[in-house]
Amino acid sequence: MLKSRKVYLDYAAGVRANPSSIHVLGLKAKNELQNARREIANVFGARPDEIIFTSGGTESNNLAISGIIWSIFEKYIFSSNKKLLYFTRYSKQSILKIARQFFLPHIITTNIEHPSVLETCKMLKRRGLIELSIVSVESNGIIDPKKIKKEIKENTVLISVMYANNEIGTVQPIKEIAKEVRYYRKIKPKNIFGEFLFPLFHTDAIQAINYLDLNVEKLGVDLLSLSSSKIEGVGRIGMLYKKKSVLIAPMFGGGDQEMGLRPGTENLIEILKFSKALKLIEKGKIKEIKRFKNLQNYFLKKLKNFKFDFIINGDLENRLPNNINITFPNIPSELLVLELSAKGIMVSSKSTCKSLHKDGSYVIEAIHFAKALFLSNNENNTFTKINPKIGGVRFSFGKKTSKADIDYTIKILSEILQKLKKWYN
Amino acid sequence: MLKSRKVYLDYAAGVRANPSSIHVLGLKAKNELQNARREIANVFGARPDEIIFTSGGTESNNLAISGIIWSIFEKYIFSSNKKLLYFTRYSKQSILKIARQFFLPHIITTNIEHPSVLETCKMLKRRGLIELSIVSVESNGIIDPKKIKKEIKENTVLISVMYANNEIGTVQPIKEIAKEVRYYRKIKPKNIFGEFLFPLFHTDAIQAINYLDLNVEKLGVDLLSLSSSKIEGVGRIGMLYKKKSVLIAPMFGGGDQEMGLRPGTENLIEILKFSKALKLIEKGKIKEIKRFKNLQNYFLKKLKNFKFDFIINGDLENRLPNNINITFPNIPSELLVLELSAKGIMVSSKSTCKSLHKDGSYVIEAIHFAKALFLSNNENNTFTKINPKIGGVRFSFGKKTSKADIDYTIKILSEILQKLKKWYN
Repeated sequence: MLKSRKVYLDYAAGVRANPSSIHVLGLKAKNELQNARREIANVFGARPDEIIFTSGGTESNNLAISGIIWSIFEKYIFSSNKKLLYFTRYSKQSILKIARQFFLPHIITTNIEHPSVLETCKMLKRRGLIELSIVSVESNGIIDPKKIKKEIKENTVLISVMYANNEIGTVQPIKEIAKEVRYYRKIKPKNIFGEFLFPLFHTDAIQAINYLDLNVEKLGVDLLSLSSSKIEGVGRIGMLYKKKSVLIAPMFGGGDQEMGLRPGTENLIEILKFSKALKLIEKGKIKEIKRFKNLQNYFLKKLKNFKFDFIINGDLENRLPNNINITFPNIPSELLVLELSAKGIMVSSKSTCKSLHKDGSYVIEAIHFAKALFLSNNENNTFTKINPKIGGVRFSFGKKTSKADIDYTIKILSEILQKLKKWYN
Repeated sequence: MLKSRKVYLDYAAGVRANPSSIHVLGLKAKNELQNARREIANVFGARPDEIIFTSGGTESNNLAISGIIWSIFEKYIFSSNKKLLYFTRYSKQSILKIARQFFLPHIITTNIEHPSVLETCKMLKRRGLIELSIVSVESNGIIDPKKIKKEIKENTVLISVMYANNEIGTVQPIKEIAKEVRYYRKIKPKNIFGEFLFPLFHTDAIQAINYLDLNVEKLGVDLLSLSSSKIEGVGRIGMLYKKKSVLIAPMFGGGDQEMGLRPGTENLIEILKFSKALKLIEKGKIKEIKRFKNLQNYFLKKLKNFKFDFIINGDLENRLPNNINITFPNIPSELLVLELSAKGIMVSSKSTCKSLHKDGSYVIEAIHFAKALFLSNNENNTFTKINPKIGGVRFSFGKKTSKADIDYTIKILSEILQKLKKWYN
């Protein structure tokens, strides 16, 4: 009467391909997840168990930073003390004893990090969990490794420097900073964090994914954040590379997924898309870089014929090949974005993640401030002081961008500037 | 020469429909997001600014709980003290003064919550941030509101009780608990948390989405978690309802998305899918409940003719209409899942989020323990003591489930039990 059939009675599990289910569909999903994890790890020269999937770039950066801090807290503080002292009824003696025993962990980062790094560090500081040093960028949008080195202290547990900047596209000297970090680890004094290889080195590589070398060994990083959303048309997950020997604690409580470091059912479909896309990128990287470099040079050449004042923000050499960021003195960049948009050209005036802020870009402000400082120190006062609130306009290219697009953009931009010039002078 | 054209030069923004971009594509996305948020809020009888989108159910529960705790820390502690005392070099006097001034915030939850609530609370306790009371479930899988009431203390800031259990499908008396909470708020002594309406009441409604009333006013909750993944074929986002007057602090540092409470580019595509699906569910809810109740009764009727011992886990009245959870004494439920899977029937032996654990289900263990306790108190010793590690098999129905599916399942189950009986007696 009853033939053999397929009956799915696991609707409460949410997704059919749930790698945590032990039935055949679950095992198939688990298998696909493991394969994807291995293939993704290969791209970075990493091990599969060094790859943690998250919901996106913001979460990856948060997990790297907060994960380190909580693991230190769990390891060094909560193992001996079950409660935070300031709430409780400890005796005078024990409070003071423990108070002297610990240092606050110290983080070093830069003033041009993405908000998911910079604001996270500030939040942890505000919540009383860390000491924080923020290193200022140079006028070319590059961080000086010597300045990072100078900030390293006995209690420094983490240094976080982005690989490529999201607004001005400058590529940071990650390998050089990694060298300084490794050197310090060798010579550092033994302290309470002595048993671990502190300071750790984290890089936010989210903007680097399409164009830069992602081999974690060559880079010399302990943690590296990525997001699949920065690959054109791919997806909505994030990833954190974490060296096997590095301990992090989860931000979320919940299930055992991602080695317990990121509870919640895995987004298998997105992970598979990410794995596929990542392999394709690695294959075509050299060719793509060349094509974008050509487009970038073409754009810059066209700009040179401009009869308007402008400043290219950020170093031209150490820069993502698909990024050009320009400040037109006195003309608010947000206004230019709106004018260009009205003509069908979509560009950005700052990191989209902070677009609701009305105070312009802190990245552009930082490099213009550094430039002004440099010039005033060198007593060369020909430099026109730029209103830092002016910001910069970011032109970022993708697969379909053509020279004709750039021709059109330059033409329209020129017309808009001609119009606006009358009002902003 | 150059015709009017569309030029997209905002590839670095990641997604084209980024609600934070100020160009026309960004504005269009922002508009769609606002509409979806309004329509979703309507379903709950809430305001649009009371809806926070997250990456999933696990994150929603974590944000509700950690968000409350961090907002208390930021409000009551960090405004006056910039650092955690136990790290620093405060004078004796100031340490003791502040130590006496504060209580640790207290959370009440239950022993059958999903791991994303229960493990989160335990994690916060382990990290020294809260006091925790865990109320035990009754033998029918229902929480007694009086037991919750008994645990409320001066420093209780949050009570978290799930709406419907993910394993055994029991529906908790949320409205009754809400009444107790409201009553306590009126009569409670003034303490350092006095200015707020503590204790707050959170419910994890993730398993309730398809079948139960989600009106937050009628339920009387301050916070409610949901996940789009529990709607068949929909998606991968989460949502937290947070009453306007309730303060929470973000878990992530980053951009200003979701009123600054959940940084990271919004997953617009998933949000739109969720909005659409939610409206459809509300429309068909009454009809679907009836259909599932019929299937459930059909399944139970078929079971009654079984020649094997079994226990239906959880109350039959206050129960999700698509859930049946059965323990077969002495037969490990994971083994049954594997045997059924081999015959094409996909069921679950416990919450998928904890499937990697080998210790059986803590939910099944909790209700069997409560039952044994009840029976031993009543000196009725006819109850066979069940090995708590045996767990339960969860059968959960969905849109396509038919009576023929149930016929086939019962037949195969009977064959498997017949086979296993020889080994497990």
